[in-house]
Amino acid sequence: MNAHVKNVRAFLAKRDIDAFLIKSKTMKKYLGTLTGSGCNVLVTTERGFLIMDGRYVNEASERERDLEFRVHAQGEGYLGELREALASCGCKTLAVEADAIRVPEYRELERLGFELVLLGDEVARMRMVKDDAEVAAVQRAVDLADDVYARVIERLRVGMTEHEVGALVQYYTLSAGAEAMSFDTIVGTGPHSALPHGRPTDRVIQPHEPVLIDFGAQLDGYQSDMTRVCFLGEPVERMREMYEVVLAAQLTGIDAIRPGMAARDVDAAARKVIADAGYGEYFTHGLGHGIGLGGDLPLLNQSGDVVLGEGMIMSCEPGVYLPGVGGVRIEDDVVLRDGVGCPMNTTSKQLLVLDVR
Amino acid sequence: MNAHVKNVRAFLAKRDIDAFLIKSKTMKKYLGTLTGSGCNVLVTTERGFLIMDGRYVNEASERERDLEFRVHAQGEGYLGELREALASCGCKTLAVEADAIRVPEYRELERLGFELVLLGDEVARMRMVKDDAEVAAVQRAVDLADDVYARVIERLRVGMTEHEVGALVQYYTLSAGAEAMSFDTIVGTGPHSALPHGRPTDRVIQPHEPVLIDFGAQLDGYQSDMTRVCFLGEPVERMREMYEVVLAAQLTGIDAIRPGMAARDVDAAARKVIADAGYGEYFTHGLGHGIGLGGDLPLLNQSGDVVLGEGMIMSCEPGVYLPGVGGVRIEDDVVLRDGVGCPMNTTSKQLLVLDVR
Repeated sequence: MNAHVKNVRAFLAKRDIDAFLIKSKTMKKYLGTLTGSGCNVLVTTERGFLIMDGRYVNEASERERDLEFRVHAQGEGYLGELREALASCGCKTLAVEADAIRVPEYRELERLGFELVLLGDEVARMRMVKDDAEVAAVQRAVDLADDVYARVIERLRVGMTEHEVGALVQYYTLSAGAEAMSFDTIVGTGPHSALPHGRPTDRVIQPHEPVLIDFGAQLDGYQSDMTRVCFLGEPVERMREMYEVVLAAQLTGIDAIRPGMAARDVDAAARKVIADAGYGEYFTHGLGHGIGLGGDLPLLNQSGDVVLGEGMIMSCEPGVYLPGVGGVRIEDDVVLRDGVGCPMNTTSKQLLVLDVR
Repeated sequence: MNAHVKNVRAFLAKRDIDAFLIKSKTMKKYLGTLTGSGCNVLVTTERGFLIMDGRYVNEASERERDLEFRVHAQGEGYLGELREALASCGCKTLAVEADAIRVPEYRELERLGFELVLLGDEVARMRMVKDDAEVAAVQRAVDLADDVYARVIERLRVGMTEHEVGALVQYYTLSAGAEAMSFDTIVGTGPHSALPHGRPTDRVIQPHEPVLIDFGAQLDGYQSDMTRVCFLGEPVERMREMYEVVLAAQLTGIDAIRPGMAARDVDAAARKVIADAGYGEYFTHGLGHGIGLGGDLPLLNQSGDVVLGEGMIMSCEPGVYLPGVGGVRIEDDVVLRDGVGCPMNTTSKQLLVLDVR
């Protein structure tokens, strides 16, 4: 377990909860424990337990210094050991993750007499402010994505399919040592770029059309997320205009990322630029989301209620999608540092028109 | 919705359940409905409903012929429409998927007065027997994997990292049009091949060492899964012996895949070959698992209680893992057809020794 446990304990203290049962892979990564499905972590205000089946004991003995081990047979389930661990600490109230606990387990815990507290957003809030090591880890994942993008656009050719482009993105990302893609890679060419989450198809790149690529790399658990649009041959005037509107909105959004700003106001600032240019109805999603181990806060959207603060990392990714014509989205990961939003990506955001080739 | 709904309805009739709320992506794929997270499918003994938020209405109107639509606002949740749909059919008992329903929803459904039935394995059992179209879909995914493997081994070189090998596997799979990998690609070289689920590392291929590759392609929702081990330069005698033992076990396993056999007996037949050769303690996992849309039955392991029948598809993947030395696993996907287990893969299983290059 690492120093992040202090954030978990601060939450427990504030909410007067005795213990937190951690089942999600994301939170296990956050705490630096083993992440296997047969590992359950229990954090109390003073102690920490790793409840596991026999398969994990060797690795746990090598790696874990400050967790007490409780071991059960592989087929038996962890609830018996959990109950004993909780009893040994005199714990009555137990927090569980709404997104990670299964209904049968929840009912069994109820039956055992614990007072259960279901946590939703509170879990992502515990890890919303990143420490220096986390910012550095995200920066490495961002740097890798920037590097991959540079290699991919060198290889873009008219006649390539979206499948080939997506495969190339993943090839460069994984061969450089990323554990995984942050999410399913999005590639949209021509009118297909107007689907905000379009998965690659057999469509081939045509001259003058937008090529939208949205992807991210995962390194040491931390993820990046970037989007760029480029063209092989001069775009039509409409696409050029959309590009400049989206870029202006993105820069406005980044500028609004300041301590004390409400997330919804950052969204509103960028959204206003797009609306003022007459494209308001074609910006059909939120401005951004937290960046970290996955599923992070804050959400920058019209109902985002987080007040931004130092150390938060979020994407800033406005888009305009004209059905049947094409779409533009420009996305950087942005860290709030020393009072300003600093883009972590270094890939140029100027309109990129490659030669037709 | 497609003809698979008859399997769902047969289950409901047998168990005397009025309706089934489907939230998992896998089951939505199985029924051929929209799969978005804002789409919930309700199947009753006579009717079918698609309960969705407004984003999906256009696509649903184009695609869905035999589902009644119920639409709610995006922020509002589907439970109100679900309750009305159930009331309109006079449904009292409602089945839900234990792996897909969240605790807060479950509690709300309880509060609404429904008699809930939590389904576990029963869900995968509904789709355990594949029809001809499903077998054909898996075969396409298997053919793609065979083709990818042939291209990858052509490119293998001493000095390549596991990361590069894994990236190459994914490049060929995705550029050929697969939607996704079936699971995180496994690459293990040298002693690292002795970790049954080793993810690629920076380790480089050395002459005479095993190179284990385990991957699969997903096409039209259906997945393949294959493992081969090859060598660049003659393996040491021990590895050669292990290879022949595993291959004999794999062929024995395939031969035992017959209608009427219990899954555990298939596992036992292959396991005996490995145990008789003195490697029993180094075969540390089950023999195989169902193949289809993901998370399929039957499980071929020491407690597998499914009785095999025509149309089931399963992997057959015995392995021997000597810590510090290396591992061998050989895996085909096998369909039970006309009374026998037919390997769907065509990649040779003879020991493959490539030139050192």
